[in-house]
Amino acid sequence: IRLALRSWPEVDDYLNHCKGVILPLGSTEQHGPTGAIGTDALTAEAVALEVGRRTGVLVTPTQAFGMAEHHLGFAGTMSLKPATLLALIHDLVMSLANHGFERIFVINGHGGNIATTKAAFAQAYSSAISNDLPVASKLRCKLANWFMAGSVFRAARELYGDQEGQHATPSEIALTLHIEPSLLSKQRPLPEPAPAGPIHGPEDFRRRHPDGRMGSNPYLAKPEHGASLLETAATALSEDLTSFLTAA
Amino acid sequence: IRLALRSWPEVDDYLNHCKGVILPLGSTEQHGPTGAIGTDALTAEAVALEVGRRTGVLVTPTQAFGMAEHHLGFAGTMSLKPATLLALIHDLVMSLANHGFERIFVINGHGGNIATTKAAFAQAYSSAISNDLPVASKLRCKLANWFMAGSVFRAARELYGDQEGQHATPSEIALTLHIEPSLLSKQRPLPEPAPAGPIHGPEDFRRRHPDGRMGSNPYLAKPEHGASLLETAATALSEDLTSFLTAA
Amino acid sequence: IRLALRSWPEVDDYLNHCKGVILPLGSTEQHGPTGAIGTDALTAEAVALEVGRRTGVLVTPTQAFGMAEHHLGFAGTMSLKPATLLALIHDLVMSLANHGFERIFVINGHGGNIATTKAAFAQAYSSAISNDLPVASKLRCKLANWFMAGSVFRAARELYGDQEGQHATPSEIALTLHIEPSLLSKQRPLPEPAPAGPIHGPEDFRRRHPDGRMGSNPYLAKPEHGASLLETAATALSEDLTSFLTAA
Amino acid sequence: IRLALRSWPEVDDYLNHCKGVILPLGSTEQHGPTGAIGTDALTAEAVALEVGRRTGVLVTPTQAFGMAEHHLGFAGTMSLKPATLLALIHDLVMSLANHGFERIFVINGHGGNIATTKAAFAQAYSSAISNDLPVASKLRCKLANWFMAGSVFRAARELYGDQEGQHATPSEIALTLHIEPSLLSKQRPLPEPAPAGPIHGPEDFRRRHPDGRMGSNPYLAKPEHGASLLETAATALSEDLTSFLTAA
Amino acid sequence: IRLALRSWPEVDDYLNHCKGVILPLGSTEQHGPTGAIGTDALTAEAVALEVGRRTGVLVTPTQAFGMAEHHLGFAGTMSLKPATLLALIHDLVMSLANHGFERIFVINGHGGNIATTKAAFAQAYSSAISNDLPVASKLRCKLANWFMAGSVFRAARELYGDQEGQHATPSEIALTLHIEPSLLSKQRPLPEPAPAGPIHGPEDFRRRHPDGRMGSNPYLAKPEHGASLLETAATALSEDLTSFLTAA
Amino acid sequence: IRLALRSWPEVDDYLNHCKGVILPLGSTEQHGPTGAIGTDALTAEAVALEVGRRTGVLVTPTQAFGMAEHHLGFAGTMSLKPATLLALIHDLVMSLANHGFERIFVINGHGGNIATTKAAFAQAYSSAISNDLPVASKLRCKLANWFMAGSVFRAARELYGDQEGQHATPSEIALTLHIEPSLLSKQRPLPEPAPAGPIHGPEDFRRRHPDGRMGSNPYLAKPEHGASLLETAATALSEDLTSFLTAA
Ligand code: NI
Ligand code: NI
Ligand code: NI
Ligand code: NI
Ligand code: NI
Ligand code: NI
Repeated sequence: IRLALRSWPEVDDYLNHCKGVILPLGSTEQHGPTGAIGTDALTAEAVALEVGRRTGVLVTPTQAFGMAEHHLGFAGTMSLKPATLLALIHDLVMSLANHGFERIFVINGHGGNIATTKAAFAQAYSSAISNDLPVASKLRCKLANWFMAGSVFRAARELYGDQEGQHATPSEIALTLHIEPSLLSKQRPLPEPAPAGPIHGPEDFRRRHPDGRMGSNPYLAKPEHGASLLETAATALSEDLTSFLTAA
Repeated sequence: IRLALRSWPEVDDYLNHCKGVILPLGSTEQHGPTGAIGTDALTAEAVALEVGRRTGVLVTPTQAFGMAEHHLGFAGTMSLKPATLLALIHDLVMSLANHGFERIFVINGHGGNIATTKAAFAQAYSSAISNDLPVASKLRCKLANWFMAGSVFRAARELYGDQEGQHATPSEIALTLHIEPSLLSKQRPLPEPAPAGPIHGPEDFRRRHPDGRMGSNPYLAKPEHGASLLETAATALSEDLTSFLTAA
Repeated sequence: IRLALRSWPEVDDYLNHCKGVILPLGSTEQHGPTGAIGTDALTAEAVALEVGRRTGVLVTPTQAFGMAEHHLGFAGTMSLKPATLLALIHDLVMSLANHGFERIFVINGHGGNIATTKAAFAQAYSSAISNDLPVASKLRCKLANWFMAGSVFRAARELYGDQEGQHATPSEIALTLHIEPSLLSKQRPLPEPAPAGPIHGPEDFRRRHPDGRMGSNPYLAKPEHGASLLETAATALSEDLTSFLTAA
Repeated sequence: IRLALRSWPEVDDYLNHCKGVILPLGSTEQHGPTGAIGTDALTAEAVALEVGRRTGVLVTPTQAFGMAEHHLGFAGTMSLKPATLLALIHDLVMSLANHGFERIFVINGHGGNIATTKAAFAQAYSSAISNDLPVASKLRCKLANWFMAGSVFRAARELYGDQEGQHATPSEIALTLHIEPSLLSKQRPLPEPAPAGPIHGPEDFRRRHPDGRMGSNPYLAKPEHGASLLETAATALSEDLTSFLTAA
Repeated sequence: IRLALRSWPEVDDYLNHCKGVILPLGSTEQHGPTGAIGTDALTAEAVALEVGRRTGVLVTPTQAFGMAEHHLGFAGTMSLKPATLLALIHDLVMSLANHGFERIFVINGHGGNIATTKAAFAQAYSSAISNDLPVASKLRCKLANWFMAGSVFRAARELYGDQEGQHATPSEIALTLHIEPSLLSKQRPLPEPAPAGPIHGPEDFRRRHPDGRMGSNPYLAKPEHGASLLETAATALSEDLTSFLTAA
Repeated sequence: IRLALRSWPEVDDYLNHCKGVILPLGSTEQHGPTGAIGTDALTAEAVALEVGRRTGVLVTPTQAFGMAEHHLGFAGTMSLKPATLLALIHDLVMSLANHGFERIFVINGHGGNIATTKAAFAQAYSSAISNDLPVASKLRCKLANWFMAGSVFRAARELYGDQEGQHATPSEIALTLHIEPSLLSKQRPLPEPAPAGPIHGPEDFRRRHPDGRMGSNPYLAKPEHGASLLETAATALSEDLTSFLTAA
């Protein structure tokens, strides 16, 4: 189901019966004192692959770097400026549209990517028309944030209540524990986190959230939660994708 | 309360006691067969001025053009590409930050601006640091969409129920009837609108929404609703702004 | 005559008999110790609306922010970088050309916008060809600086002689006094201004022109001058526009 | 050794004893009728991780999309325009430099990325100075193309002689067979390939190289070659990296 | 006097006693049926070198390509888009400012460059501040269009009257005949030219000016006129430069 | 053979029998304590003109400014940022392709331009397709670095052995002595140079190479070497160009 493992004639064949494709989008940024820097890419990729398996829709490689400017105050964060991410998503959508893909389903693991990705979709629709692409009038992109799916949100609340928080959340950490069991060794009890709040620049962020967490208690995360949340997310997004592919 | 009517020494004085400023952001785009193309700028400006009057916070001129690529299939729509709007908001925030403004409150009248404006804020925070602005670590921007304030949303639902729709809504049209009574002459009963749905490119939009409306019945709009909605929006956003200015 | 108050079907109708449109372009920048920061947008809009009324040509909303980098040393100035203004004017011209407008008449209130706006026109002509717009070979843009019209220039010299100066001039201030009578309260005698001269960066500008004026005595401005200058400008630009619309 | 699996405090610690980091850079593009579209990212990542293991230098996530404009004539290719890839590499280098990394070692799997990546390094050095980064004068980036290492080149020639070719080469395919054994099922004898030659645009490329190969016979590739080539590449690049880290 | 023939230590020495530099800017574009495509670069360079010789101010190499989008309808024209020329002039000014040059005198041979070059100056002043260049507050750029100097203008009118026209003018052609006598062989009587007029896109330009001339009769040009006009221009611009260098 | 000395109808004629064109690309940057700052443009132009004379292929004006960021630590260096040079080469190629030129042969004198120029070619191929240029599928660009031609390289080694070095080399200096005999006066014995090495930012470059040389002894250069090297380079590149023009 991975585009990376297909040859180009296989993709040609695929396009004869399906015009949809999944693009996983992550981020490489701090996730608190115990969370993995790769959390958002690991989770987006895991969800995307599971959705691909269930729906038979091709999954492109994961774009592991996103817009994480506000996390740059913490070592290891790698961020694209909004204008760069905008151009990147634009180019990837245009490449796919050029081959005849008509439905681009971006499975995203990071809140900071949402705004820029939506802006990029708008720019790509325009370019498809300017460049006279045959699919221009049929091209549709959809952003699916796995962590914001209703059923995922409810499951996380049930598991962690208020301690879910908004960044370095136990639900996303649980997913990574399921995907990469070695991460379990980082888990340890943490002090009360700084509360969640609005996000501004990196210095403001670090001042308000000195250890990188926003109201979350990632110590609550268990690998088995991750397995279950992955299942929940894949179910929700598979339905979402199916509707997207068949929508008039 | 309008920055446009102040002299620069007056702004210098103002900055001694307040670091906040309101920037109204609209769009110039089709609003259905009977709605004014300037709806989003007219409403954002009206709300912004009323919030300014109540809070004493300066209101800059209105940026009347926003990101409306998907409406370009209808005559009269004037749109900035996402990359352009991103640069514009970035430059305006940087100008204000350069003078020592620390809290930029953008009152927005158009859903299509949201993503790009948020991306621009992130880019501006970065530039403020790169350029070593004295306010870099204190700069905060906030996007306030008047039509999405909880109380406004509820009031619109009470007045119009499902006929509120999502574009060329009776609530925004009502505001324009209150602001520009001459617009009343355009009001007339309209056929059942196309239902709301996801937004893609301009051709897709026009095909799905042939008269430009998304599930809305703007004929329900009355000037007196507009007066009341303006009051509701100004109350909600004034509170929002006050919290923003005083937040630690 | 305001595009903002039209619906899209009305613009469709309009395009059946006229391919021209007026775009007012201002700036938001210091205008000396007693002048309004919004002077250039207020005056461009007033002239544009009067020209629209006389000629029946639609007037778009005013772009209130322009290129005012050299005024950034004075509080309240909001400036777009040249590259940003270039992209903005480009996008607005392209939007209008996309609907079939063939003659774009920009009424400008600020000298600092001239260079960038002309550069943007050249870029838009190219894009119209690259994008295969049907109007590509017919598209024409014209920049009309109201304050540089011959008759306006002569009237200002008659009224103010050498005290007209080059920035925060009594003629533009007079126009604002006519448009916004409340501004009269700012008027007061001022010391001899710094002389006009070439314009470089913001620090150089403030050093040479410590109160923001360039050789002008805005205290000479009277509202009745403004009324008369508005009349003169509207007459000159209406003729200019008429020729532009009918030129082969 | 994967940055993705570290927490930010672990990266802080790491920076106390090592200022180097490895960034794997691939491409997502056609690799002939039997090669995997993800070849260049799979191989770059495999080499990077092995180099990381041997040297103890952190490996960031893989940037799976590169500059592959000339392959856009084949389904499945996803390409960033040169200007976009330039901005992306620039932003990633700047993020790392911002944390104090001084030696950025890019392990690249795709010839088409070389030019743009080098251009990006030059742009990043300039920005590091403009932005006054503390590491500005110490920042060094190095591009290591695993397939061009002398010992790899010689090994490939020994194994495949002239049938190595220049795109969809048996050596890179062998590496993917070692990494992803499932790819073996695609292997089959292929007709004589079109000869290698200069690379221009996508239509020219497809006309000259109708099945995507440039002079190569990927059917010669065996998983065990891949294991051996990976070993050879990792040895060569580990030495290269060690010199880079310790160079004065 | 040519920077190109200096070594860097010689430039270091030069900067000890002079902070000024001349940058010749041309264009490579059609100049009617008998004029050289290189006219604007040849003339700008000749004037610049003569001004350099007289004033002792260093002359950089000539930027031979400018903004000539409107001439692209004629074979041989090579044009930079306005956004590109803006970036180019910006980068060159920044390079010079970085070395401590404080007065950049651009001697320009092409009307189409004026707007974009002025926009670039404004952008460079801003960048000099953002990048904290030591000369930021002292940096000044001046655009000197040799063909618009008062004395040149008068001399051209005296020599050619109304037949001077506005593009492919006898005065600029005369200069090229003086500089490159081989060009004399192209001279021949031409039919009445199309009249000068406003400039829009390349198709509009070619339609209005089918042979590329705007109201000019270049057949009137004589090499000896060129010698005299060069003298006149050099005198005017040398005075202009001297004032520029010594202005407070 | 210089495009600059042709009229547009002459270029039209030329295109009837030849679709090729030579674009000389230089740089304006320090060349050690005794070398001319204009070395790379002087040499590229001299080689290009000689190749043009021999092959009859038109030579455009020289682009004298290139990517020389790493030399900015030495007075007199003028550099375009990679993104700017990319746009510039892109625009020039597009201009030429627009007229029907199908083979663009860039003769380059500076190593620092290589990466960016290649990136620009890739971007131009894409734009030619997006803009639907008639030559899109036939457009080919080739970068020919005169100093890297095999025969030139060998000749330089023969003449100077290890003292050729990598920047401010005796071979390029010899060429300039041949072209501009006045440069002989700068020649003088120099101390042992700093060794060549990798190139990073300007501060790093100046620290490693305090007088600007990289392992070279330019004092060995003689004008007669230059004459011979020019002959060698022109021979090599003329063959290269001929193959390029006739390649299928
Ligand atoms: Ni996350
Ligand atoms: Ni609206
Ligand atoms: Ni003004
Ligand atoms: Ni490959
Ligand atoms: Ni000319
Ligand atoms: Ni050189």
